[in-house]
Amino acid sequence: MRHSQLFIQTKKEIPKDAFNISHQYLVRGDFIEQTISGVYRFLPLGFKVHRKIEQIIREEMLNLGAQEVYLPVLQDKKLWLETNRWKTIDPPLFTFKDRHQKETALVPTDEEEMVDIVRKRVKSYQDLPFSLFQIQTKFRNETRATGGLLRLREFVMKDLYSFHHEKKDLVNFYSKVKNSYFQIFKKCGVPAICVEASSGTIGGELSHEFMVVSEIGEDKIFICKKCGFGANMEKVGEIKKCPKCKGILEKKNSIEVGHIFYLGTKYSKVMSANYRSKNGKLKPILMGCYGIGIPRLMATIVEVNHDGKGIIWPKEVAPFQIHLISLPSTKPERVDKVAGRLYRDLQKRGLEVLYDDRKDKSAGEKFADCDLIGIPLRLVVSENTLKQNCLEIKKRSEKKVKLVKINSINSYIRKDS
Amino acid sequence: MRHSQLFIQTKKEIPKDAFNISHQYLVRGDFIEQTISGVYRFLPLGFKVHRKIEQIIREEMLNLGAQEVYLPVLQDKKLWLETNRWKTIDPPLFTFKDRHQKETALVPTDEEEMVDIVRKRVKSYQDLPFSLFQIQTKFRNETRATGGLLRLREFVMKDLYSFHHEKKDLVNFYSKVKNSYFQIFKKCGVPAICVEASSGTIGGELSHEFMVVSEIGEDKIFICKKCGFGANMEKVGEIKKCPKCKGILEKKNSIEVGHIFYLGTKYSKVMSANYRSKNGKLKPILMGCYGIGIPRLMATIVEVNHDGKGIIWPKEVAPFQIHLISLPSTKPERVDKVAGRLYRDLQKRGLEVLYDDRKDKSAGEKFADCDLIGIPLRLVVSENTLKQNCLEIKKRSEKKVKLVKINSINSYIRKDS
Repeated sequence: MRHSQLFIQTKKEIPKDAFNISHQYLVRGDFIEQTISGVYRFLPLGFKVHRKIEQIIREEMLNLGAQEVYLPVLQDKKLWLETNRWKTIDPPLFTFKDRHQKETALVPTDEEEMVDIVRKRVKSYQDLPFSLFQIQTKFRNETRATGGLLRLREFVMKDLYSFHHEKKDLVNFYSKVKNSYFQIFKKCGVPAICVEASSGTIGGELSHEFMVVSEIGEDKIFICKKCGFGANMEKVGEIKKCPKCKGILEKKNSIEVGHIFYLGTKYSKVMSANYRSKNGKLKPILMGCYGIGIPRLMATIVEVNHDGKGIIWPKEVAPFQIHLISLPSTKPERVDKVAGRLYRDLQKRGLEVLYDDRKDKSAGEKFADCDLIGIPLRLVVSENTLKQNCLEIKKRSEKKVKLVKINSINSYIRKDS
Repeated sequence: MRHSQLFIQTKKEIPKDAFNISHQYLVRGDFIEQTISGVYRFLPLGFKVHRKIEQIIREEMLNLGAQEVYLPVLQDKKLWLETNRWKTIDPPLFTFKDRHQKETALVPTDEEEMVDIVRKRVKSYQDLPFSLFQIQTKFRNETRATGGLLRLREFVMKDLYSFHHEKKDLVNFYSKVKNSYFQIFKKCGVPAICVEASSGTIGGELSHEFMVVSEIGEDKIFICKKCGFGANMEKVGEIKKCPKCKGILEKKNSIEVGHIFYLGTKYSKVMSANYRSKNGKLKPILMGCYGIGIPRLMATIVEVNHDGKGIIWPKEVAPFQIHLISLPSTKPERVDKVAGRLYRDLQKRGLEVLYDDRKDKSAGEKFADCDLIGIPLRLVVSENTLKQNCLEIKKRSEKKVKLVKINSINSYIRKDS
């Protein structure tokens, strides 16, 4: 895409109330914009990143054999009364009445919906196991939504729910999801640690969180360097020694990027989601649920992939793969011609290119926008580089600049670069 | 996908309160399920169709040069007070208060949001034209939501907004969108007519609707066979003769599948979304908006593509391309082996195959599910067909059954079948 046609307006000023780097850079790069507290617009660049993260997650879910569904925002109060969560869930539901004075709520999590779908369809152990997931908007009536995309009142979430009859199969699936999550976070360029966690109002027998160590995280976790044990302080309280090996614990201020719950029969029991076992007995279905909030993951990617000038997107989630810049020149026709041809060639090869073709910007302004936006690879065409029949090539993550002959650029840039 | 692993439970009974064919078949085929009035779950098969329609629309929007964004559900009341639509929009907004007693609403349409985004970024005529779209959930506080997916209170909509400074450019873009819409409806297998329409609470200077003639549609349109004129009765009232050529009009009960609005300066004026023109004057931006509701389009596809046994999906939106069935047999191993190999071969070729490998179903039950679900191409492997080293091939839209040699099937089924 040509920058002159991209709907974007980068900002030099740090937005007031933006204390986190991810908040600052994502707003300054015009990826996102806040409307009301904890509610954000995703502008063209921001939505490109959002969709790439979605797609990474979707592929991992399909690899697990999960099937995608799409469940509604407006909730059936009856279901929430069955689990007694209408009044008790924390943060509380957004509730309201329609024009017929019928009460409804906005969905914060989908255990009730999923169990209702499943109990209507599962009869015997032969109908199990399976898993369902969706990528859909959730609403949380938070007291304080802060930190840009880190704590929102409205956000898109991937939530996966699994249904088994054999405990060992659920344990096995739960551990497969753990591996999937590590894959997802690795692809997103985020080093996540899995720790024991408190289950909150979702509940269940056991749960794990995926944590990214960061000063701006709201969670405190303990990690034992000796045996690898990790736990959220919310679960274990203020402890000094590892409960497993008595080793010394490190305390880290961390961001939770994923949470998985071994629910067991918590929801299936109260909502009568049963199956008939091999020997004819009615038994409650075993469940797990597994969530990743996409905007928070996006913010975390920025928190761990940036420098003093802007974002450094990992290539798997970058809005474009290549940022091509033509610099102002005394012979603009020649520079534009070469850059324009390069742009078309790279696009023909299926590469995603942002071409900064703007005429009214200085070299400095173009480089500043490029660093801020954070596309992995920068190509520069200028009068100077053309004197040597070259263009300049630089990775966003590196300082080193290289001159490359124009006619060798195609072999230089691999499709997967 | 193997049917034994697909999360689906088809139903023989017509759901009570389902008067439309699309409602009946989509529920019976377990594509969708209602929770509360006008609110539906999309189950695995249904969501596959939903996503295919989304993708057809997204591609056409990108062809128009539109850029994708993602805007929030929770609305900023201030913006709605600027246009005076907080209290006046019809159907009324779903409004409620958060835990801090701050009032918000669920998004029914995005003119306010879009104008706010644009007025913060556009300064001069040089920043125009451009267009933004999204595929996102909308909420309408309807009095009566009926007819399955035809009139919902919550649904995913594609909404496109265009911003121009030259009137002739907007007129030109408006007509390009018309062509895009015809492409979309054609790909979806829906014969749409474009007619003049009333602009309702969206407003603007002029609007057109895309109508599919159907007995179950809520709209009445007049069509002139002589000059091609068409209009919604809501706009022109009860007329007998064509206002253009005095020809005789036909009256048709129709479904609206798309609505486009030439808004002009209606929103930009009241919200001060201005640009500086070539001669330095501040002028309001010219706007258009263009919507397609995805579930209603999905229902309309079924209304015009079905027979007495079930749905006949056009291949572009079908949940799978091929429905492969192995029939019960006295030699099940041989049938399963051939069908299983065929399944893997077709999948390797990138074809989307639903393989009915169920052991506990009769031939009649399998054929009934197949006709109901409506996948374009059916392949049957049975003891009888194998006697001739054949399988049976049948298009869902045709009655004719053909026997084809197993080793020639790969050349028989083209990738685009």
